[in-house]
Amino acid sequence: ERGEPANNTFMLVFNLHTQPFKKGLKKKKKKPRGGVERGPDVIRAAGLVEKLQAQGCAVKDYGNLSFEEVVPDEPVGRAKRVRAVGGANQKLAEAVSRVKRDGHTAVMLGGDHSLAIGSIHGHAAALQSPLGVVWVDAHADINTPLTSPTGNLHGQPMSYLIHELQSKIPALPSFSWVKPCVAAKDLVYIGLRDVDPEEHYILKLLDVKTFSMTEVDRLGIARVMEETCDYLTAKVKKPIHLSYDIDAIDPSVTPATGTPVVGGLSYREGVYITEHLCQTGLLSAVDMVEVNPARGRTEDEVQSTVRTAVDVLLGCFGRRREGNHPADYRMPEP
Amino acid sequence: ERGEPANNTFMLVFNLHTQPFKKGLKKKKKKPRGGVERGPDVIRAAGLVEKLQAQGCAVKDYGNLSFEEVVPDEPVGRAKRVRAVGGANQKLAEAVSRVKRDGHTAVMLGGDHSLAIGSIHGHAAALQSPLGVVWVDAHADINTPLTSPTGNLHGQPMSYLIHELQSKIPALPSFSWVKPCVAAKDLVYIGLRDVDPEEHYILKLLDVKTFSMTEVDRLGIARVMEETCDYLTAKVKKPIHLSYDIDAIDPSVTPATGTPVVGGLSYREGVYITEHLCQTGLLSAVDMVEVNPARGRTEDEVQSTVRTAVDVLLGCFGRRREGNHPADYRMPEP
Amino acid sequence: ERGEPANNTFMLVFNLHTQPFKKGLKKKKKKPRGGVERGPDVIRAAGLVEKLQAQGCAVKDYGNLSFEEVVPDEPVGRAKRVRAVGGANQKLAEAVSRVKRDGHTAVMLGGDHSLAIGSIHGHAAALQSPLGVVWVDAHADINTPLTSPTGNLHGQPMSYLIHELQSKIPALPSFSWVKPCVAAKDLVYIGLRDVDPEEHYILKLLDVKTFSMTEVDRLGIARVMEETCDYLTAKVKKPIHLSYDIDAIDPSVTPATGTPVVGGLSYREGVYITEHLCQTGLLSAVDMVEVNPARGRTEDEVQSTVRTAVDVLLGCFGRRREGNHPADYRMPEP
Ligand SMILES: [Mn+2]
Ligand SMILES: [Mn+2]
Ligand SMILES: [Mn+2]
Ligand SMILES: [Mn+2]
Ligand SMILES: [Mn+2]
Ligand SMILES: [Mn+2]
Repeated sequence: ERGEPANNTFMLVFNLHTQPFKKGLKKKKKKPRGGVERGPDVIRAAGLVEKLQAQGCAVKDYGNLSFEEVVPDEPVGRAKRVRAVGGANQKLAEAVSRVKRDGHTAVMLGGDHSLAIGSIHGHAAALQSPLGVVWVDAHADINTPLTSPTGNLHGQPMSYLIHELQSKIPALPSFSWVKPCVAAKDLVYIGLRDVDPEEHYILKLLDVKTFSMTEVDRLGIARVMEETCDYLTAKVKKPIHLSYDIDAIDPSVTPATGTPVVGGLSYREGVYITEHLCQTGLLSAVDMVEVNPARGRTEDEVQSTVRTAVDVLLGCFGRRREGNHPADYRMPEP
Repeated sequence: ERGEPANNTFMLVFNLHTQPFKKGLKKKKKKPRGGVERGPDVIRAAGLVEKLQAQGCAVKDYGNLSFEEVVPDEPVGRAKRVRAVGGANQKLAEAVSRVKRDGHTAVMLGGDHSLAIGSIHGHAAALQSPLGVVWVDAHADINTPLTSPTGNLHGQPMSYLIHELQSKIPALPSFSWVKPCVAAKDLVYIGLRDVDPEEHYILKLLDVKTFSMTEVDRLGIARVMEETCDYLTAKVKKPIHLSYDIDAIDPSVTPATGTPVVGGLSYREGVYITEHLCQTGLLSAVDMVEVNPARGRTEDEVQSTVRTAVDVLLGCFGRRREGNHPADYRMPEP
Repeated sequence: ERGEPANNTFMLVFNLHTQPFKKGLKKKKKKPRGGVERGPDVIRAAGLVEKLQAQGCAVKDYGNLSFEEVVPDEPVGRAKRVRAVGGANQKLAEAVSRVKRDGHTAVMLGGDHSLAIGSIHGHAAALQSPLGVVWVDAHADINTPLTSPTGNLHGQPMSYLIHELQSKIPALPSFSWVKPCVAAKDLVYIGLRDVDPEEHYILKLLDVKTFSMTEVDRLGIARVMEETCDYLTAKVKKPIHLSYDIDAIDPSVTPATGTPVVGGLSYREGVYITEHLCQTGLLSAVDMVEVNPARGRTEDEVQSTVRTAVDVLLGCFGRRREGNHPADYRMPEP
């Protein structure tokens, strides 16, 4: 039988995205990075906390963790903004560890997917045993600093975390605190459809379990989730870290994101994933990233993206589409 | 083997929605209720009758059943417009009974879903044996007058009809003619995704068979329909009453409706349901409700909603996407 | 195990659509036929050739095969433009035969679906053994000149090619070169949902394997493709000719086409078909037809249609959504 969703969840909601440095040397040249730092606030404004409370969760909003831009933060090789992202993730990791040691479920709102470095690191550090990672994304985000074609750290977070990749990772400033903490066999990808050749090589080299959109089409989302959970819990029931990039879902549903890719998950599949994970009773931390209101071309596009992100999160905490009712409900009679 | 669709169907098409009372005391305060009473006429204007005839059905259009607004019709508890809806449904029930006793298939066009009270009641009254109900809807519409948070009767019709709920239903003016006529075990829901806690309690209490969108995602629509029909015909092949709320289908397809809910059935799933039911040979009456042209933001939205409603109904009466041809067709040769 | 996609493919890209005769007698009366002749050029402009090369294909673009309008080209019975289409297809057939005899895979870009007459004829003529045809389309395109309600030859191509239909086909000017070359049992339809009664009769008469949208809904696209390939290769592994009408895909994705029909394949299903066929190693020629930029109401509609056509074609030549990497890739280390 499936477990019941925890309803004494304490949630940590914050934004890893660094605040722009107000009077930097390069200010003129620096274009606004497009608003992904506003993701958490629009998700809050859509009523996430109130809706979670309405379904019986105790919620604590830790607010946004903000960080000053590091100046200068010259690229290291191609890798951009290394010091800012490294430093911010270190603080995030400590905060997540504290929340997990207190026995709560953590929710991290992004911001971009580079926050997974701190989020997963902090989660793993608080546990005595390995964790499983379910990475829902159009992208694998497993480039190393040396394979990344763009230098964007949000395309690289998994590479820093996987034990088996450490010989391929160069030393970076502000990253010395990062220790690999996830085994390649404890990672499952769902939704992939835009994978760099270098990343594909890594996934095959490490034999990482992946359900690309081809497998979602072949198996259906229900069997994908069955196989995901069977795979991760084959030997021992590990706590699960869900790292959910909103771009996993189709751009017709969630267009307000930085790197949309056609052919994504439907709204229904997107929600099914969290309904299923919730019912395992193993969901221990959740990232929701890459909601970027500035990328919606209309207010409808922003609202659809944000509402979907909220529904995905509600699914993590017990919402079922068949309905829910309080255990002590008593029906009125005439 | 599957049965052949009946092609000697007589159809009863009418609109239960009451006509607004022209010079009522509350006229100034009364906003137009949004146009759901125009649903049947736009469905007709889209060619329903002609298309049914083209596929071999004998059709009789009984026109709109109209009713004068009852004034005053003060709320009874929270329940609104009780006398108008009760009286109108009584006439509808009599009309449906007559059509069924004459051996025809009845089609009721709405209008709102409160018409199911009369439609199912009349259908049951004409039969010697129990009927099965397939309720396709985003909503369960099974609030009692005492649990309903809104007081809208279109959120309550099933509660009046289910034997097992009668102790929970208060006496209402103009409802004394209503006798429960459906067993909880003879009801199947498809498409649920917005169920009130009170309704969820009722569904669990009565152990009603439900295929919420979660189950549609898990099983696929084909298995949902297999299981629906196996369940309803396990002991005896009961006539089936299909009550189809257009809001079961996703708002990207059928937006012109009063209470759209994201994450609905696709057009293809919506049509598959009726293709499958038709081929059982058991489909005995059909409600098509909640098409509301005033709720479409564009003419495209209205047309998409109406065309989908028509296609769903054509599926009830033998249309197959693989094509159809007359039994006596002879192919021309050079 | 599945075969590897060929990467030494030579592609023949051309447009069968005839050029309008500049100073014809009927010029005033002749409306522009809507731009389907521009399909190949917009597909090229979207980078098809470059993208195929980037995934390791050798590609040769044979350019557009253009044909002068035949004047006069009076209808033969109801059949329109018989001489132009017959003559153009004869040249196409010869070109395709040459490409196939040289051992290459052929890609034909349309233009309308009447090009399949020449494309399949030329493909079959180059082989010593039968070929299998996978026809992906909302329409069966199997009317004979005598059953066609419109007289459009793009609704008839399969009728000229099927052995078992030859007694039903009248002699037409410029068609004497056409010899039936496909057995009814070697044809599979996928995506049907708008089939004329006469066509339905033919499909049943000849017992043609069809996966209409009803079967796609029932079985899922993965099982449809398994069954398609099992069916075609049951006795012997035949080369496969894929004739892909972009209107097979849903108009919400590919609206820029002449005869869109609701309820089509999703983008994902559309791509899955070619991913699967590619991996059989049997794909020998591909038609991509009915992309018509003039039918898009917005530039977005055109772009979505064209991009989807390109992605479908990339799937024919080895692209996988899980990613690809060169066999000789070596990963950089610090
Ligand atoms: Mn992504
Ligand atoms: Mn990501
Ligand atoms: Mn309803
Ligand atoms: Mn409803
Ligand atoms: Mn077509
Ligand atoms: Mn076609």
